[in-house]
Amino acid sequence: MGKASAQVDEIRLWSRLMDMAAIGATPKGGVNRAALSAEDNQARRRLADWSNELGFETGIDEIGNLYVRRAGRDADLPPIVTGSHLDSQPTGGKFDGAYGVIGGFEALEAIERAGIETRHPIEVVAWTNEEGGRFQPGCMGSFVFIGEKSVADIAAITDSGGITVSSALAETLAAFDDLPRRALATPVAAYVEAHIEQGPRLEDTCKTIGVVTGIQGQRCFSVEITGEEAHAGTTPLAIRKDALKAAMSMISALETIMADETDTVRFTVGRFEVYPCSPNVVPGRVFFTIDFRHPEEAVIAHLTDQIEAICTANARGCDVDVQETVRNTPARFDPDVIATVRQSAERLSLAQMDMPSGATHDALYLARVCPTGMIFIPCAGGVSHNEAESATASDLAAGVKVLADTLVDLAT
Amino acid sequence: MGKASAQVDEIRLWSRLMDMAAIGATPKGGVNRAALSAEDNQARRRLADWSNELGFETGIDEIGNLYVRRAGRDADLPPIVTGSHLDSQPTGGKFDGAYGVIGGFEALEAIERAGIETRHPIEVVAWTNEEGGRFQPGCMGSFVFIGEKSVADIAAITDSGGITVSSALAETLAAFDDLPRRALATPVAAYVEAHIEQGPRLEDTCKTIGVVTGIQGQRCFSVEITGEEAHAGTTPLAIRKDALKAAMSMISALETIMADETDTVRFTVGRFEVYPCSPNVVPGRVFFTIDFRHPEEAVIAHLTDQIEAICTANARGCDVDVQETVRNTPARFDPDVIATVRQSAERLSLAQMDMPSGATHDALYLARVCPTGMIFIPCAGGVSHNEAESATASDLAAGVKVLADTLVDLAT
Repeated sequence: MGKASAQVDEIRLWSRLMDMAAIGATPKGGVNRAALSAEDNQARRRLADWSNELGFETGIDEIGNLYVRRAGRDADLPPIVTGSHLDSQPTGGKFDGAYGVIGGFEALEAIERAGIETRHPIEVVAWTNEEGGRFQPGCMGSFVFIGEKSVADIAAITDSGGITVSSALAETLAAFDDLPRRALATPVAAYVEAHIEQGPRLEDTCKTIGVVTGIQGQRCFSVEITGEEAHAGTTPLAIRKDALKAAMSMISALETIMADETDTVRFTVGRFEVYPCSPNVVPGRVFFTIDFRHPEEAVIAHLTDQIEAICTANARGCDVDVQETVRNTPARFDPDVIATVRQSAERLSLAQMDMPSGATHDALYLARVCPTGMIFIPCAGGVSHNEAESATASDLAAGVKVLADTLVDLAT
Repeated sequence: MGKASAQVDEIRLWSRLMDMAAIGATPKGGVNRAALSAEDNQARRRLADWSNELGFETGIDEIGNLYVRRAGRDADLPPIVTGSHLDSQPTGGKFDGAYGVIGGFEALEAIERAGIETRHPIEVVAWTNEEGGRFQPGCMGSFVFIGEKSVADIAAITDSGGITVSSALAETLAAFDDLPRRALATPVAAYVEAHIEQGPRLEDTCKTIGVVTGIQGQRCFSVEITGEEAHAGTTPLAIRKDALKAAMSMISALETIMADETDTVRFTVGRFEVYPCSPNVVPGRVFFTIDFRHPEEAVIAHLTDQIEAICTANARGCDVDVQETVRNTPARFDPDVIATVRQSAERLSLAQMDMPSGATHDALYLARVCPTGMIFIPCAGGVSHNEAESATASDLAAGVKVLADTLVDLAT
């Protein structure tokens, strides 16, 4: 019996990644696979087909998470789980999420080819709607799996076209009614997720493997401003209630308090919608989102607790409603899983470093119910959530080698 | 033979206005009749039906302008024309535009009922796409009619769904292939347009009739900012190219130079679109419009000539492209038409005042080819381009009385 990592095949991995990237491919070389869309289901089906070809068990749960399972010696033991997500940003890249799923699958195939019998079963999961691009918030698959919310809690959430999670999910489940239905909230022995870094640190320091120690905290808000539509040519500025100019004042004031010489604060306004959005009508309504992240809970609380008051103070005569949509305290991963990942990389003589994750991942939620870790590999220029996202076949394979050996260690 | 104004029927006028307002009615009491949409065509058809009932000639030209004609004694003389538009803002009111068309039609019916024979024919025109809400720029019907641009020049312009003017226009023309086709650029003896003021001055000074002396100048721009999409959780602010924050800086800097104690400057950002508009992606692209108006050409030139440089200076690492989309110098209406409107109001003992128009109207373009004037009536609180837009039946009828007598004076 050889090592699992020795059976990882760089070409096979790359070819499956490119095969997956063709689903929802964009003209600029990225992908657009909105959660629970036809493309997202096509991606799930591709994974299920690969699983069936290799004789693994395939299943789906009621939030649409897809499971690929390789049996262990003891069927009663909870599985060691790896995975990530197949949905993407509207103008997303080929590797964000897909790498963790397909890399997990490659690790499973490598373990199979190496003929390794593990005590625990090993599972690869494609979690539903990690990105939160179509339906907010993201990580629905993982937070519903761990039981933090139920499907009923999120059923009524709509996308920008008014379609509910409930109806999109029903279509997905109908498309996979050939698969056994898995239960939610089943025990997990450990969780390890492979992902591109989505930041520049590994590339800048010429490292291949990031041993992820935790995930920074995040707090998100939605801000809805109601002003008054008015004629752009006739209405004196003094009597306008311009929702767009109110939004500008709020964001500008927020930028001032968020200023940070160390460039650790992540303050982003990503979704921003103006109504009625006509050139000669003073905007009567603006909706925007705030995404704030920082590794320290005290800083998160100090800065984000000011958001509502700053929005109210800069409303310029409009009404404003601020709602908190996400609150995640910083997560610290399990020391044993971290150590296992680090040792696997060391044994493979891969240049590695410990690092926190700037991005949120499904691992944030799994860490609440089981020992958890993550493996990062470099991506070009740290660019992600962008069609230009890029990673090398060699780095991708290196990460899967570390993952395969880590899974075997944890499962044995 | 009595006076035309004596035959104006307040109830009939109000009832036709409400009948028209039902087409594209919104739940909040406004209307949504996008130019060349099914609703806009239904509105045209309603007018054509009324015209046929009264035995007037009805015609349509190749930009979709609909004509209702009452013959004059001398068929060789160019017509005296009145009218306005039936398209609306996405969240528009019942009276903006529709009043000028239906009021013009009521004036024609009143002249007919008074048995007045005029030398010139009199025509009511519903101009296509005055608002510019769906297809930019607005006033397409009037500027194509006067020959400033051809249909071919604007055929390729698209709405936000990618539909071209050319294809929307073809549908409209097909729906009206029962009507005789009118030529463009035919001579007009004079043009008078009735409209709600869309500002607060008449109401504030307790006047019923505004004798409009001209239209303030306007200059519009589109600004396209190209930054770089990036992950909201991982990307350091120092390396971001955030198109939204660049837009905020530009608009904030523009607001500073546009500051005006006299509140005469009209500076509006009405359309503002963010891509990909996902909560956890740094915006890679923003498109916005600037609508600037002022009565003095020197002020227009001084302030708007700075726009491109200010946008460039505040691009925060993004690329920016500024395009001029509209340039209208301030228009002065014809002294004789102004005097005729004023005298008609005086003879009816209506409280009146001379005033410029803050808004652009089709009259701006007609003024380039024939003697032109306008008649304003008050609207509640000066509110327009808003579903709450409101005017009284009595003021609406007063404006039509002035219009009817003015048309007869000009046509005789």
